[in-house]
Amino acid sequence: MNANHKLISQVSRSTDSKIVFLVIDGLGGLPHPETGKAELETASTPNLDHLASLSMCGLTIPVARGIIPGSGPGHLALFGYDPVANLIKRGVLEAAGIGIDLTPDDLAVRGNFCTVNTEGVITDRRAGRLASTESRELCRLLNDIEVEGAQVDVHPVESHRFVIVFRGPGLSEDLADTDEQVNGVVPPPVRPTHPGAQPTADIVNAAVEKIKNVLQRSGSPANMLTLRGFSKLPDMPSMSDVYKLNPLGIATYPMYRGLARLVGMKVMAKGPGFENVVDEMIANYDDHDFFFIHYKGADTAGEDGNFEAKVRALEEVDAPLKKIIDLHPDVFIVAGDHSTPAIWANHSWHSVPFMMWNRWARPDTATRFTEQDCANGVLGEFPATNVMPLALAHAGKLIKFGA
Amino acid sequence: MNANHKLISQVSRSTDSKIVFLVIDGLGGLPHPETGKAELETASTPNLDHLASLSMCGLTIPVARGIIPGSGPGHLALFGYDPVANLIKRGVLEAAGIGIDLTPDDLAVRGNFCTVNTEGVITDRRAGRLASTESRELCRLLNDIEVEGAQVDVHPVESHRFVIVFRGPGLSEDLADTDEQVNGVVPPPVRPTHPGAQPTADIVNAAVEKIKNVLQRSGSPANMLTLRGFSKLPDMPSMSDVYKLNPLGIATYPMYRGLARLVGMKVMAKGPGFENVVDEMIANYDDHDFFFIHYKGADTAGEDGNFEAKVRALEEVDAPLKKIIDLHPDVFIVAGDHSTPAIWANHSWHSVPFMMWNRWARPDTATRFTEQDCANGVLGEFPATNVMPLALAHAGKLIKFGA
Repeated sequence: MNANHKLISQVSRSTDSKIVFLVIDGLGGLPHPETGKAELETASTPNLDHLASLSMCGLTIPVARGIIPGSGPGHLALFGYDPVANLIKRGVLEAAGIGIDLTPDDLAVRGNFCTVNTEGVITDRRAGRLASTESRELCRLLNDIEVEGAQVDVHPVESHRFVIVFRGPGLSEDLADTDEQVNGVVPPPVRPTHPGAQPTADIVNAAVEKIKNVLQRSGSPANMLTLRGFSKLPDMPSMSDVYKLNPLGIATYPMYRGLARLVGMKVMAKGPGFENVVDEMIANYDDHDFFFIHYKGADTAGEDGNFEAKVRALEEVDAPLKKIIDLHPDVFIVAGDHSTPAIWANHSWHSVPFMMWNRWARPDTATRFTEQDCANGVLGEFPATNVMPLALAHAGKLIKFGA
Repeated sequence: MNANHKLISQVSRSTDSKIVFLVIDGLGGLPHPETGKAELETASTPNLDHLASLSMCGLTIPVARGIIPGSGPGHLALFGYDPVANLIKRGVLEAAGIGIDLTPDDLAVRGNFCTVNTEGVITDRRAGRLASTESRELCRLLNDIEVEGAQVDVHPVESHRFVIVFRGPGLSEDLADTDEQVNGVVPPPVRPTHPGAQPTADIVNAAVEKIKNVLQRSGSPANMLTLRGFSKLPDMPSMSDVYKLNPLGIATYPMYRGLARLVGMKVMAKGPGFENVVDEMIANYDDHDFFFIHYKGADTAGEDGNFEAKVRALEEVDAPLKKIIDLHPDVFIVAGDHSTPAIWANHSWHSVPFMMWNRWARPDTATRFTEQDCANGVLGEFPATNVMPLALAHAGKLIKFGA
């Protein structure tokens, strides 16, 4: 546990109060050049605006000013974990996302099936976006391979994507990717990025050789593989250790369930449609004291550069919020893991609108849930890692520090 | 010295300029549900408001967002000390509060006289709130006891409360409390929380046995004791080491004088009534360059949940401020160690109104000394540990850092 977590764990206590934590992925935006209004200002969001007028508002800084967060760091910071010290690499993230419970002996890596020509040069790095059914069948075949030094498990994800988990003592994550993310190259062997990782590289290369042979015998267009994001489980305490919470995470997309699982949440899949996520939360409301609910649509539209679609996504998330307001949770947070301004069409470094509705929240002047009103909120721009301590305090879950 | 103190000590210099630092205990509040106005907004405080209109305003974060500060951390942060690294436990705090000059060889612990029945079970954990005169007499008797390994000094505090100071080489503070803060239990022996503390536990248990015998022979209802907050002096540099100040602290309540003494202030007791504290400061104005003056009433009313009494307390502190304004100190700070909103009836985590009056302060839009105006102040929400560097700078007591 780092120093901040030690401090919180000393003063946190379990109580009956309820915290609802909505993360709108890619929430923050920028003004449309024609209207001068950002996505939140353009959208009709009566529930978000009602909450903002009663809430303490601000703008979260996910990692540090200027840093563009991936989904992992963006969420970990909101959950109160140092997003730099606890960087989660792709292999672990994908594994967690499909529900694999990793152990400290496991080395996970994301794989892509690809097509190579007779010279071994990649001609299609997604093997024609292989059907998920065919991919599942290939993974089943690959689970028969054996190499010395580690157990090898191959798990399908979706289309041409899969995860390999190597389980064995002393495996190292210091290995370079073999996926150069372009066609026209021969995938290199796995190389250690640190001399101590040579034995692990040997194990992985032996497995790659056997996998290649199985694939080529299968007759599939997927006759080769590339690997990226070799990674082991980071050493993180659970939210129940640090915060004394009994948390539930509900998300439609696997990656966000994976992130929730990594910090010790029980997770549920639900969707499509945000209203289903809300209904599932309400159905489980008595059994937990913390609810992370995730909405993806705003980020997807933002990444597509579709301003109108992002506006509609924000309106879609707004409607079911009435049900949560009617539940009267002790603390209701609306936050984002990062900004995805539609005019930037990608994750961005901009700070992210935030509000916390609670009877003990100090009011401010916000009347709408927008970047501008949040900028003038009582919290100003502040680190996302401060959100959890604030949530616990407002929920009455912290005792006094020091005499 | 930590890194921040090293930096400040490199650039601080002694000058004739004067800094007056008023701490209004429990200053911050929350709106009354009927009026929508917090305590400061409700009170008539012409002097505070006049100062606010001329000052640089903000809201201090005493320890970290969400953390509920005790008096120790709240004051240490304002004095510029890291409140987590320098956590002062109850024994040392109580000892300092009654004017005991602890040495690095001393182990201090807070004691309560209690009443046990013939089975040793606590029937009254305050021994009927023993009269202070009787408590003083018991402490005098107890000072005759002797144990091997440490000198034992028992000091009365008030009513059933006292402090024991064990003085000897190699004493450890890693001991568990014997005060479970309830009736109906037998006080356990002192147990080490770390194996190395067993010899100290043996010394303390031997002393407890002898104290118990003296108490039982005395015929007082106080026939047993409980102990909590075993602690040694934290290793802190003085304000004169770090800031080159010659500081004076004036407070009515012993605990706040104790805190001032721990950071190297000369201290004076004065009261009752805040005007007496101000007059004492003025009487000593030529002999010091830094004046910490403490007002307790706002916190007491807040903890009682008495909104009206807190409003009156703030009005009581306001009136004598005219005398300080007329002195024209170079820097006049009004701050709080933490918030104690009357509607919360306890210390809280909310950031605390702050203002600094000085001719070099950057003006802002505040016209009243309230949470709202401070939230919009030029300092925003900022760490309380930044106050001392700002005070020294505005007082012309810092030289340039770096060429």
